[in-house]
Amino acid sequence: MRIVHVGASGVIGKAVSAELARRHDLIAVGRSTGDFQADIDNPSSISRMFSQIGEFDALICTAGAVQFAPLADFTIEQYAIGLQSKLMGQVNLVRLGLEFLREEGSFTLTSGPTNDDPISLGTSSAMVNGALEGFVRSAAIELRQDRRINLVSPTMLEESSRLYSPYFQGSKAVATTDVVLGYVKSVEGRQTGCVYRIGWSRDR
Amino acid sequence: MRIVHVGASGVIGKAVSAELARRHDLIAVGRSTGDFQADIDNPSSISRMFSQIGEFDALICTAGAVQFAPLADFTIEQYAIGLQSKLMGQVNLVRLGLEFLREEGSFTLTSGPTNDDPISLGTSSAMVNGALEGFVRSAAIELRQDRRINLVSPTMLEESSRLYSPYFQGSKAVATTDVVLGYVKSVEGRQTGCVYRIGWSRDR
Repeated sequence: MRIVHVGASGVIGKAVSAELARRHDLIAVGRSTGDFQADIDNPSSISRMFSQIGEFDALICTAGAVQFAPLADFTIEQYAIGLQSKLMGQVNLVRLGLEFLREEGSFTLTSGPTNDDPISLGTSSAMVNGALEGFVRSAAIELRQDRRINLVSPTMLEESSRLYSPYFQGSKAVATTDVVLGYVKSVEGRQTGCVYRIGWSRDR
Repeated sequence: MRIVHVGASGVIGKAVSAELARRHDLIAVGRSTGDFQADIDNPSSISRMFSQIGEFDALICTAGAVQFAPLADFTIEQYAIGLQSKLMGQVNLVRLGLEFLREEGSFTLTSGPTNDDPISLGTSSAMVNGALEGFVRSAAIELRQDRRINLVSPTMLEESSRLYSPYFQGSKAVATTDVVLGYVKSVEGRQTGCVYRIGWSRDR
């Protein structure tokens, strides 16, 4: 398969790319690195990237920014970053990538647990992750030509737990190899409209 | 209790207001009607409204716009309406209303089933409703002074089913009196961080 991977240079991205590149033709997209460049906060940058790359069989996004702050201090501008980058950045990859996605192809986006398993400072993250779940379930029923869309929702990674564990009290970090499985299932399997929760469960 | 009700003139709003006004001091807020005026799409309009009204014990919002269109045709501008109005309009009511909400007071926002039970044309609605669920669960753990926040998520109303049933195939409409119960439970009960699904269930 010809797979476009946006955010291939991040912690999750590197591991996902390494695994899928063993069996597929991986095209890495980064803000300044990779085979092609795109800033997902900017829809015209996304359009330009797709017209350069052309048709593909799968798109994976492991990119997207969101801010953290106390509820009482959160500004409109801070909320706007999450909405513009992690939410609409990924939604625009789908919206604008649709015409380049081949039959039976798939989109795989990335969220996180905070919408169902909230943390302090996380109202923007919770909002964005909840929005991504809704969008993916909804987009799945509108896709045609056997095209699919899924969401991978990993908890804190072992590799970043020294940095993030003070914010995820009592959460067990997950191995990056387990997170990779979610992307493999989405791209190589046939499921659609799914949220793959990696390292956590709604029934906690 | 002194209750600020934004969107009191809508179908749900009228019924909720009628019930709660039997036991409480209801302050109706509309875009052009009501005791005070506010446009929830505009944060400075919300701030002005709160400074006019002053302290209160509960805020209910039954307002907020969202667009419907096929996934392939949805524009950024159409998505922005849902994010600005139904999502950030309600989030800004919480954010800006916080300093006026008394101890043990509550916020009650409104979403809908499309994030978990998707319909055609509904990707924006799904996104916004999912975002509201995440936000409410997350905000609940940050509120202090025994203040609370809940979300009412009603399915299609019997009163509007002639208009909407072509879009909600196989969904059973719910009586407005049942929807009102969600708002009563949120305002008069002591629960927080809850999503009251009225007329539908996640385990469908």
